Amino acid sequence: MTYSNHIESRLSQLFPIVGWLKSYTREEFYGDMFAGIITAILLVPQGIAYAILAGLPPQLGLYASILPPVLYAFFGTSRTLSVGPVSIAAIMIASALTAPEISVLGNPVQSALILSAESGIIMLLMALLRMGGLVNFISHPVLTGFTSGAALLIIGSQLPQLFGIKTPSCGFDMSCYNTVFQTFNVSTLMIGLAALGLLVFFSGPLIHMLKKMGLQPSLITAISKCGPLLTIMLATLAVSHFDLTGQQHVAVVGQVPSGFPELNMAFIVIEKWQLLLPYSGFIALIAYVESVAIAKVTANLRSEKIVPNQELIALGAANLAAAVSGGMPVAGGFSRTMVNFAAGARTQMAMLIAAGLLALAVIFFSPWFENIPKAALAAIILVAIVPLVKLNNIPITWRYDRGDGIAEIATLLGVLIYGIEEGITLGIILTLISHLRKTSQPHIAVVGRIPGTEHYRNIKRHSVETWPNLLLLRVDESITFANINYIEAFIESELRRQPDIKHIVLIFTSISDIDTTALEVLENLNHSLQVAKMTLHISEAKGPVLDKLEKTDFLKQLKPGKVFFHTEDAVRELGKRI
Amino acid sequence: MTYSNHIESRLSQLFPIVGWLKSYTREEFYGDMFAGIITAILLVPQGIAYAILAGLPPQLGLYASILPPVLYAFFGTSRTLSVGPVSIAAIMIASALTAPEISVLGNPVQSALILSAESGIIMLLMALLRMGGLVNFISHPVLTGFTSGAALLIIGSQLPQLFGIKTPSCGFDMSCYNTVFQTFNVSTLMIGLAALGLLVFFSGPLIHMLKKMGLQPSLITAISKCGPLLTIMLATLAVSHFDLTGQQHVAVVGQVPSGFPELNMAFIVIEKWQLLLPYSGFIALIAYVESVAIAKVTANLRSEKIVPNQELIALGAANLAAAVSGGMPVAGGFSRTMVNFAAGARTQMAMLIAAGLLALAVIFFSPWFENIPKAALAAIILVAIVPLVKLNNIPITWRYDRGDGIAEIATLLGVLIYGIEEGITLGIILTLISHLRKTSQPHIAVVGRIPGTEHYRNIKRHSVETWPNLLLLRVDESITFANINYIEAFIESELRRQPDIKHIVLIFTSISDIDTTALEVLENLNHSLQVAKMTLHISEAKGPVLDKLEKTDFLKQLKPGKVFFHTEDAVRELGKRI
Repeated sequence: MTYSNHIESRLSQLFPIVGWLKSYTREEFYGDMFAGIITAILLVPQGIAYAILAGLPPQLGLYASILPPVLYAFFGTSRTLSVGPVSIAAIMIASALTAPEISVLGNPVQSALILSAESGIIMLLMALLRMGGLVNFISHPVLTGFTSGAALLIIGSQLPQLFGIKTPSCGFDMSCYNTVFQTFNVSTLMIGLAALGLLVFFSGPLIHMLKKMGLQPSLITAISKCGPLLTIMLATLAVSHFDLTGQQHVAVVGQVPSGFPELNMAFIVIEKWQLLLPYSGFIALIAYVESVAIAKVTANLRSEKIVPNQELIALGAANLAAAVSGGMPVAGGFSRTMVNFAAGARTQMAMLIAAGLLALAVIFFSPWFENIPKAALAAIILVAIVPLVKLNNIPITWRYDRGDGIAEIATLLGVLIYGIEEGITLGIILTLISHLRKTSQPHIAVVGRIPGTEHYRNIKRHSVETWPNLLLLRVDESITFANINYIEAFIESELRRQPDIKHIVLIFTSISDIDTTALEVLENLNHSLQVAKMTLHISEAKGPVLDKLEKTDFLKQLKPGKVFFHTEDAVRELGKRI
Repeated sequence: MTYSNHIESRLSQLFPIVGWLKSYTREEFYGDMFAGIITAILLVPQGIAYAILAGLPPQLGLYASILPPVLYAFFGTSRTLSVGPVSIAAIMIASALTAPEISVLGNPVQSALILSAESGIIMLLMALLRMGGLVNFISHPVLTGFTSGAALLIIGSQLPQLFGIKTPSCGFDMSCYNTVFQTFNVSTLMIGLAALGLLVFFSGPLIHMLKKMGLQPSLITAISKCGPLLTIMLATLAVSHFDLTGQQHVAVVGQVPSGFPELNMAFIVIEKWQLLLPYSGFIALIAYVESVAIAKVTANLRSEKIVPNQELIALGAANLAAAVSGGMPVAGGFSRTMVNFAAGARTQMAMLIAAGLLALAVIFFSPWFENIPKAALAAIILVAIVPLVKLNNIPITWRYDRGDGIAEIATLLGVLIYGIEEGITLGIILTLISHLRKTSQPHIAVVGRIPGTEHYRNIKRHSVETWPNLLLLRVDESITFANINYIEAFIESELRRQPDIKHIVLIFTSISDIDTTALEVLENLNHSLQVAKMTLHISEAKGPVLDKLEKTDFLKQLKPGKVFFHTEDAVRELGKRI
């Protein structure tokens, strides 16, 4: 490889955009152009809706749709992922902003920018530590249970908006709901239901009709994806025309500032950062895991490759960009990515175009957003979110793997009963515990010598020589806190079975690590054995393991126990014929 | 084994007391008697002090020292563990009772009884599910970090008591501390310092002096362990004699009801149970893990055996007993168990005697407890808790194992900065993640046939036959969410290296489980391979694995991919010579 080739390869590793841009074709551009326009049409109402869902002014969703996708386009390995505001992150932001210790500090916009900045920094740190493999640590059942639970919470938060009901939190107090229902607002309800009807019509029956009429598939996509924008336009016109914000009290978006926010760092407020850190951690984790999952779906369809660690860099950069440009935290959105893909996007150029259009919208059209009724936005959220509730998945998981089923149900219930962060924590812990249970029983072999050789094999599988005063044990896994108790119990039961044993030799061929917990248990075990007049030895330890043990007192404590280079040496010195 | 022997063995498994009681000797009784009296003398001030530390009336600590140890004596496998109120559980109770969502409901006594009942039930459920092995899931560094952090929190909470300072929570607001310090109370401070001095004298210099005087060791133990009681008596006398509760405002314990509480179930208040459940879970976990750790220390010294699952039953029963008899949650206490052991306890008879003495104290002496100054109790807590702060352990752990060191520091800081529950959660998650990182890269072998045989071995270690259109892979571990991404990446890189491959055969000899996540990734992988005109096959799958897969669509999706009984069959059908 020449030097310039080398630089080019490193460049396209860090900036995947370099990879596709140098062979970019006109044909690809047409596809991207079309997809970019469609996605932008979807992004305007989604951006406003998700910002309001998060409890933030609408512009935080719009700003999050401009600079962040541009950054992702440069760094991201997915060609079709649409990065911007997403519903699941929005409800997590809402959960953070309404937490007592956060809400008491006021200034939710500042808090949201801190969440963007922190989750961006967390992702970049994770990339630095090469923790891209962290996607492995949330199992699919936990992710599905979490998504369903969060989606149900979002539905619960949007239904009152649709009905124009004022909502104090009633919890399980049913009489409270009675009083609340009396506050509902007919005009709002009509707007909400009309919007819902129109959206459902656009997403199903209309497509069917257009197909029957024999229209081009790309045209059908274009028309059907305009549903949200058309719904918003009609609802807004209705509000303006009948002046529903006045006497009718229909809730609307309110003023949206024109033009861009200045890039600034005003969100650097040290005290708040500490309080928001756990929430940012969860947002970063979920944003990352969900984005990679979505990116993989479309990448598989086109045999492209997602690089998890590079995704951390791209999403981290996007979230930092959100913070400095006044946007809420971002991630890859499922429905939007699917729309982008279906509309024919070939590269991230589509998202660059969409971002450009969003910028134009913010500069020229923001006065138009003022009278958008919240009920119409609630309808948009509901239509986007209902498919994420996958309760029918639970019995399938349950039947296939009981432990996974329990984790899925526990995560779902945890999210609904205790909250977003608690639910996902519970799910992660349950999967890790069930995984640990499976791996906490390593294979241990009592070995003996194959006659005439210096090979030592399992006494259960081979006919071997043994010595009555000698227990030769080979543990076939690194010794850690997860399995040391099992190993200790195994040794104890062997000693009860063979009362003549005087020397125990642990054969370390398969052991590449001994952690702190395991070391402490081994020290105690060695002490107990010495009290009972038995001696513990080690044989065939690898260099790094011995180096680690030499930093401690363990080898001294072993004495008169020894460290043998070969098991054969141990047997020659310790083995006694009857 | 005869039938009556069988019953006896089952009986002594469920009630270990049966085991030692039938061969109980007079000599053992003398030892137990002496140890029981000494432990009772320690239990009275500890019980009152830990109840106050938890933010509860003193009697909840005393009641927790009567019925719970009796239940433990019947069910527990440790002969010397002293079950009752403990400091770490007390600070966890305080953390639960002061949580906003709990404190707003009022009635902390009721909340404490719910914590006892719930943690008891959780332990019994864990016993039922045979989750005794759960001790494995908290590594020693996390436990040490947690204990140090909790001990520091306790010290922070007790110092103001010692100085008689009124404490609003100042947090990091330094000017606040200035005003607070001006409230400090000279009489309280003098009592506190005198108590501290006396306790330190009893625990060190006095023992040294008595040894020089040539007293019997058991007598030395007896005298030195009376330190706390004597301190309390002198402090109380001082308060009564100089009437310090009046003008001098020295805080005292206050009235303690005489006699027993009626056994009752008044703590069954459904709404509170849900809110307290997470706290009970943490208390149950820590109470269990710490108790077993302490029990093991003394059991090792006498070559006795602790049965983890039976400990769950015993501690669960003890906590339920605490709940119905009006006591706070209980666990095995480190310092008290050591005292009990050092004083010559041979069996749980010592704790039965101590419980009887505590009952007498509650019936006859409770009026005496009223004037005990809180400053003296703070001194007792401080002396008991300081040895639990093991900060010097951190550099040792750090040097030995970086990952364990990080977990220990993170747990300690988590407890101090975010709180008890958050700290321990963080620690557990960090250890599990680092463990998972280590286990997420299973051994995968590309195999070929040893010529002239039907044996398939690693191509890197043996000279074997291979087929250019055929990739034979053996994964040497069950396929789970933790390693499936690694396996997928391995397959992809092999396919890039060998572009002629048309068939991939996964050899399932070592696979005993495929979880939900792994199944979904395999389904996607199979789909991608089919798109790329390659076929996935399986060979040598075990019965249970095939049964599980047959519940799903996977085997249908594989077609034309097949399930082969032997790898040899696959090679005969698919292998193509060049």
